[in-house]
Amino acid sequence: MSQTSAPARVGDSLEAVDTPALILDLDRFEANLNAVHDYVLSRGARVRSHGKAHKCSEIALRQVAAGAIGLCCQKVGEAEVFVAAGIQDVLVANVVVGQSKADRLAQLARRARVGVCVDGALQVEQLAQAAGRAGTTLQVLIEIDVGAARCGVSTEAEALELAALIASHAPALQLRGLQAYHGPAQHKRTTSERAVAIGQAAAKASKVASLLRENGHQVDEITGGGTGSYLYELASGIYNEVQPGSYVLMDADYGANQLDPDAPVLQQALSVLCTVITARSTHAVLDGGLKAFAVDSGLPVPVVPGWKARGLSDEHAVIVPSEGARVLQVGEKIHLTPGHCDPTVNLHDWIVAVRGGRVEALWSVDARGALF
Amino acid sequence: MSQTSAPARVGDSLEAVDTPALILDLDRFEANLNAVHDYVLSRGARVRSHGKAHKCSEIALRQVAAGAIGLCCQKVGEAEVFVAAGIQDVLVANVVVGQSKADRLAQLARRARVGVCVDGALQVEQLAQAAGRAGTTLQVLIEIDVGAARCGVSTEAEALELAALIASHAPALQLRGLQAYHGPAQHKRTTSERAVAIGQAAAKASKVASLLRENGHQVDEITGGGTGSYLYELASGIYNEVQPGSYVLMDADYGANQLDPDAPVLQQALSVLCTVITARSTHAVLDGGLKAFAVDSGLPVPVVPGWKARGLSDEHAVIVPSEGARVLQVGEKIHLTPGHCDPTVNLHDWIVAVRGGRVEALWSVDARGALF
Repeated sequence: MSQTSAPARVGDSLEAVDTPALILDLDRFEANLNAVHDYVLSRGARVRSHGKAHKCSEIALRQVAAGAIGLCCQKVGEAEVFVAAGIQDVLVANVVVGQSKADRLAQLARRARVGVCVDGALQVEQLAQAAGRAGTTLQVLIEIDVGAARCGVSTEAEALELAALIASHAPALQLRGLQAYHGPAQHKRTTSERAVAIGQAAAKASKVASLLRENGHQVDEITGGGTGSYLYELASGIYNEVQPGSYVLMDADYGANQLDPDAPVLQQALSVLCTVITARSTHAVLDGGLKAFAVDSGLPVPVVPGWKARGLSDEHAVIVPSEGARVLQVGEKIHLTPGHCDPTVNLHDWIVAVRGGRVEALWSVDARGALF
Repeated sequence: MSQTSAPARVGDSLEAVDTPALILDLDRFEANLNAVHDYVLSRGARVRSHGKAHKCSEIALRQVAAGAIGLCCQKVGEAEVFVAAGIQDVLVANVVVGQSKADRLAQLARRARVGVCVDGALQVEQLAQAAGRAGTTLQVLIEIDVGAARCGVSTEAEALELAALIASHAPALQLRGLQAYHGPAQHKRTTSERAVAIGQAAAKASKVASLLRENGHQVDEITGGGTGSYLYELASGIYNEVQPGSYVLMDADYGANQLDPDAPVLQQALSVLCTVITARSTHAVLDGGLKAFAVDSGLPVPVVPGWKARGLSDEHAVIVPSEGARVLQVGEKIHLTPGHCDPTVNLHDWIVAVRGGRVEALWSVDARGALF
């Protein structure tokens, strides 16, 4: 449950929602969910929805109901929240370091199928110790660096070495496959740039998988991909699972991507509702700032023709009109599209789920703040 | 109370703190607190500590114990948390729009001295209605735009008109004075730029105050100023109250300001502790990203010589070494100084208060997420 009280009640009109508040357009959310799941499932692959985008069990449950094999997430704390809510298959799509985190994962494996990534020997040893103590099995994916220059082993030899180490820790650890996610590819603007980057990622994943298989290791799963690239992972024939997260919500940054003609069209379902608190001829001020919007991928975009954000401070957004834009009134409520949905959702305790201008549900962002 | 479990226990060594975690160096925090309060109080002015920086009642109570007249904050929800914790004098140093927010403020005035800012007639009417219904008195400050081009009345005539409107609503509303905060001045790098900006702000506040007084209005309080500028508000002789917030914590952005020779030297007391989860010759990856650090004022700065941040994604920071920097090991924990303390603290549920390398206390960031 969330710490703060909710900004609305079920049945309220949008006008009655207190601000700033995170608004989810349910019709668009459901259309996005079904479009992507249909696309992936009809190609014989699995969807593992990424929970870091929404941190909300209510959304996670709807993703599984709509055909997702399970959830992935970035933090042990997120996995705990999702399992507690009834998700039976979770993957921490991230390397996890620290004995206490490993112990929590091993405990979680009593209640769900739990996967986790590794890219080094220390992580393998910590996970093996933890699962050994708990008497559970953790499923391990070797994370490979397919172009992000972040986590992941760099060479095939490193992957093979890790696979052997994992195998030596059976039954505490079981190798499941490869995590081959290319983060920067998600935000390349043209379809061809994204396709090329994922083509290279798939080639590297394929090589690693072949080497491991030649050496007697089972590689059942090659997983990765996000909202910006999942089409290309599927097209590669190498990946059998994709991990889109933002697809159900969308944001200004993803909205700026050139769309593949083949791709399901995703609608902007998430916004932040703000109130105009000051209105001048030169600008207007809204009651949401850096604590209501993440700005790492650009300023939020007002959903009012002719207005754009000039800048944000802690609790204010200043927006400015172009010539001919309509005048805004103090007290008026307007929607803004966040630049980046994931860290924006993480600033809010509640998602106000709206249909036809009415609040249909209030969903707790119950994994918000699950930092470790 | 916070939603998530704490990352440490009292008595733990820093090594045992789970990461990412917000760390407060208590010796430095106390030195900062006392230095600024001594400076302000010895000049016959009042300190009203800004709670938006820390959102933590434990810190608010220590600020009052060290001589602050009370707290200011930006949100009604923050004021409610502070009053519930025992703070008896709160100012929402922001204009508040919306009848439900006004009603909550009016209710809060049963339990504490409550001030709030206005810059328009609608706000005055809503506050007057609310206080009338609740049978309480709200103390009102007219916010004037002294250079930020954000909220605040622009002209002396507007201020006079608002003062008359406020007076017409006695006893529900009582004019207390002027809010004259210059946000952008806080981050101008040179002392002379900051001094000039505040000199102009003080001149404008002085003119408005004179006009109101000539017209029979009482202006007891002229308040404003932050960590970057409070010396100049005090030196103006116009302001009798200052509102520093970041002073007890500090951040990389404030740390980059040129310091007035007269100013108390403030030490960096806040950091985020992260664990190295991947280490390569070219870079290392930490387990805290955009959900552990606000990046609106720049990337966090590793407290390890020769290392700097290359970029952050949702849950990772990639840091890179310069030549000769020491090698980092997987599992090692390092401190980083956040670019901007206020929105960084707002990402965390707990402050781990440390002295001499040991956890002395765990403080809930109990106003975190108080968005409305």
